[in-house]
Amino acid sequence: MFISFEGTEGVGKSTLIKRVHEYFLEKNKEVILTREPGGTALAEKVRNLLLQVDDTEVMCPDTELLLIYAARSQHLSKVILPALRDGKVVLSDRFTDASFAYQVKGRGLSKSKLEILNQTFVERMPDITLWLDAPIEVGMSRARARGQLDRFEKEKLSFFSKVREGYAELHRQQPQRIYKVDATRSEQEVFKQVLEIFESKL
Amino acid sequence: MFISFEGTEGVGKSTLIKRVHEYFLEKNKEVILTREPGGTALAEKVRNLLLQVDDTEVMCPDTELLLIYAARSQHLSKVILPALRDGKVVLSDRFTDASFAYQVKGRGLSKSKLEILNQTFVERMPDITLWLDAPIEVGMSRARARGQLDRFEKEKLSFFSKVREGYAELHRQQPQRIYKVDATRSEQEVFKQVLEIFESKL
Repeated sequence: MFISFEGTEGVGKSTLIKRVHEYFLEKNKEVILTREPGGTALAEKVRNLLLQVDDTEVMCPDTELLLIYAARSQHLSKVILPALRDGKVVLSDRFTDASFAYQVKGRGLSKSKLEILNQTFVERMPDITLWLDAPIEVGMSRARARGQLDRFEKEKLSFFSKVREGYAELHRQQPQRIYKVDATRSEQEVFKQVLEIFESKL
Repeated sequence: MFISFEGTEGVGKSTLIKRVHEYFLEKNKEVILTREPGGTALAEKVRNLLLQVDDTEVMCPDTELLLIYAARSQHLSKVILPALRDGKVVLSDRFTDASFAYQVKGRGLSKSKLEILNQTFVERMPDITLWLDAPIEVGMSRARARGQLDRFEKEKLSFFSKVREGYAELHRQQPQRIYKVDATRSEQEVFKQVLEIFESKL
């Protein structure tokens, strides 16, 4: 079972992932926690390039997309697929849906380029995607409270509104895989929503 | 005018590129020297990831290919296309043909993946490609004499034989763009062959 967690900055993904991790451990499941971009030593180096703030050279949208898919390809082949083959539960902080929301909807990159990369380089999609949704202002104030912002977090509110709309679009198109979770609620209530999704799905 | 230089390790690309650079300077042309993977500060960071020898994590072939195209996309958009728009001559040490020779023929990656990346992310191909050809043994002994070998140079002779065969295949398919230069000859004679190509082409 492959579960991905999606949402804009500061919606509480990390907190929820920890809870879900504990939930599977308590059920005596083998479970791994991973994240994108990243998940292997090499993919984390690519992540660093992606998040780095560099005022001397603007990263082109195509470059950003290809770096994300380079990291994803390594992550899939070295971490996700082997874990799934071993019967483990894989919890990933972001996966391909983030590329649609951030790069296509946020940056305005062509949807067809993304679809081509998904078709050519992504052999396995999540079984369940939990989309944590909250108004942008709520999340951004939490992200700011965490300290220094990375290259993505420095984007304007209008960027994140487009990202959120991207997630909403995916959710409408693939309701059988992508579940919307109301992230304005308390941690307890967010986790309760997720348990209900698991129970309905499993 | 966009000229790329191709060939396996140690065939004398760098020496030839310098000569060609001087040739255009003497003709009062504005000319830039660049290389792949690399060519911008960010793309050079990606190059470092590609060349790094890491015994703890094997880089997957898809990851290698996507990293190369990430660097290429940045290089094209920030260096090659702006220079060509300004009427400059661009000399690039390697370009897309190297991906066919090294990743497809050398590593056995699917040709269709490469073609998809070329069609989707490479908007401009070289006008002239100079393929410096020499038996693998000749080049490898020169590369070894230069010192420590990078991740590509550490490959076996059989790998480079496949790479060379890849260049030969491209040359057969696109003789109007890819010119074969006999790199076993002296520097003077190699440069003379190139001048003849320029004269016939221009």
